[in-house]
Amino acid sequence: MFYVVGLGLCDEKDITVRGLEAVKSSSRVYLEAYTSILMVKKERLEAFYGKDLIVADRDMVETQSDDILKDADKENVSLLVVGDPFGATTHIDMVLRARALNIPTKVIHNASIMNAVGACGLQLYNFGQAVSLVFFTETWKPDSFYDRIKENAALGLHTLVLLDIKVKEQSEENLARGRKIYEPPRYMSIPQAVSQLIEIEELRGDGVLSPDSTLAIGLSRVGGMEEQRIVSGTLAELHIHPEEAFGEPLHSLIIVGKRLHHLEVDYAQDFAVNRDSWRSVAKDVYNCNLDE
Amino acid sequence: MFYVVGLGLCDEKDITVRGLEAVKSSSRVYLEAYTSILMVKKERLEAFYGKDLIVADRDMVETQSDDILKDADKENVSLLVVGDPFGATTHIDMVLRARALNIPTKVIHNASIMNAVGACGLQLYNFGQAVSLVFFTETWKPDSFYDRIKENAALGLHTLVLLDIKVKEQSEENLARGRKIYEPPRYMSIPQAVSQLIEIEELRGDGVLSPDSTLAIGLSRVGGMEEQRIVSGTLAELHIHPEEAFGEPLHSLIIVGKRLHHLEVDYAQDFAVNRDSWRSVAKDVYNCNLDE
Repeated sequence: MFYVVGLGLCDEKDITVRGLEAVKSSSRVYLEAYTSILMVKKERLEAFYGKDLIVADRDMVETQSDDILKDADKENVSLLVVGDPFGATTHIDMVLRARALNIPTKVIHNASIMNAVGACGLQLYNFGQAVSLVFFTETWKPDSFYDRIKENAALGLHTLVLLDIKVKEQSEENLARGRKIYEPPRYMSIPQAVSQLIEIEELRGDGVLSPDSTLAIGLSRVGGMEEQRIVSGTLAELHIHPEEAFGEPLHSLIIVGKRLHHLEVDYAQDFAVNRDSWRSVAKDVYNCNLDE
Repeated sequence: MFYVVGLGLCDEKDITVRGLEAVKSSSRVYLEAYTSILMVKKERLEAFYGKDLIVADRDMVETQSDDILKDADKENVSLLVVGDPFGATTHIDMVLRARALNIPTKVIHNASIMNAVGACGLQLYNFGQAVSLVFFTETWKPDSFYDRIKENAALGLHTLVLLDIKVKEQSEENLARGRKIYEPPRYMSIPQAVSQLIEIEELRGDGVLSPDSTLAIGLSRVGGMEEQRIVSGTLAELHIHPEEAFGEPLHSLIIVGKRLHHLEVDYAQDFAVNRDSWRSVAKDVYNCNLDE
């Protein structure tokens, strides 16, 4: 059996009991480690699971999937994925490949940022499409996320913005020369994300985002028992908020839509940089009916 | 500590290791049992967790929340929720109430239909807002879901339609007379959901849904190891598909949006009522670039 096991969001104990059984029964266990990261090191997972883990980087998953699947029709093989297995296209590809090889497959679900984002108190029903925001370079500032946020905003919907991570990336030079030398991992912070959003708003000028009258919520390490941080405020407030106050990566950002409910305002105000401005923007700009 | 513990989607083994520890450490454990259901009986959970469970129905959660929270500042109390704790507004209310009472709270996330729906192969990024579809009666056919599907469809996005469940509901007569007599539980089936969608399309006539050229995917018991069923096809195909072929409740339905990717078509064709019509509608109506 080929198991694709979601690990959840935080550490070794977020695996489900069913997932843990699958891992323990497997002769080989791969850890997919480039579409997302857990909050703990591989060694801690290994100690808890009682298994050695083979780190599966992008290269391995995309070009050596048959090695991963080898003998999975005769013995159990597990691929561990941070969050839920269906968060990334890569894992869909793996399951399709297993199907083509007639290898039986089971997917063991878990929390992912796509549903755990509810931790900020915004209702999942009020979210539109999620978007990704990549690190801008001098010459490459892909801005299709802006159209998606605009579409969501026009419907009054919240947007979950997933912030870029760069794990085991090569510099352009090393890539060109075929040198397998990797850059240190990088994780986009909330202030950096806000800065990129504002940059594109200034370029495009459709008035989708406004520093002082768009509400947003920054989240880090959602699901972490001690580590989770949620910070709510206007874009301007989040932009100048000290980076360390957002906690460790991974980070995500929510652009709050106009279909904001007073219960959502109440819940998220506990996380506000400034409770008064949070409520006044919710009331005056978002036309939320707050009873105070 | 007040723990709100997501149970995941299927059975007693979908709880996370962290969640299981919380349950085992709790002096009282409540099972919320009206916004969703697990696939197994309470007794099986009790045997596995080694704890008696107190069933918390709507009445208890909404009117006796202080009883549930009693002494949670001095000992551990757990509220178990099917799926993820933030799937329903009710649980947000409970956490707000705990906050007001200065009771420390921890939320333990898990898979919910909102992310596990990726099991059908459609990418979560391509979903718009989710909608709920309630049982119509002769006199009450709420149709705001139609506007939401229309909004999503205009953007080419998929819509997750959550189908109504009626657990521990009173008849109008029993309600009026204050008799606590409850109707047997009811779960909306996929064919019934399709029938209601088509009924509203015929009334509203905006051409959002078409029996023969709108693709949809029915899901039941997502996350169930043996029980999961996924059926894809046109609305007309799902409408006449035998109800028992969809498996046991809970059911959900996806209306496929035009921003359909060929990988999504490939993945979901394995679940098709009729592979040829699935692909031909994807190609001809959805303009999907399929290479065969």
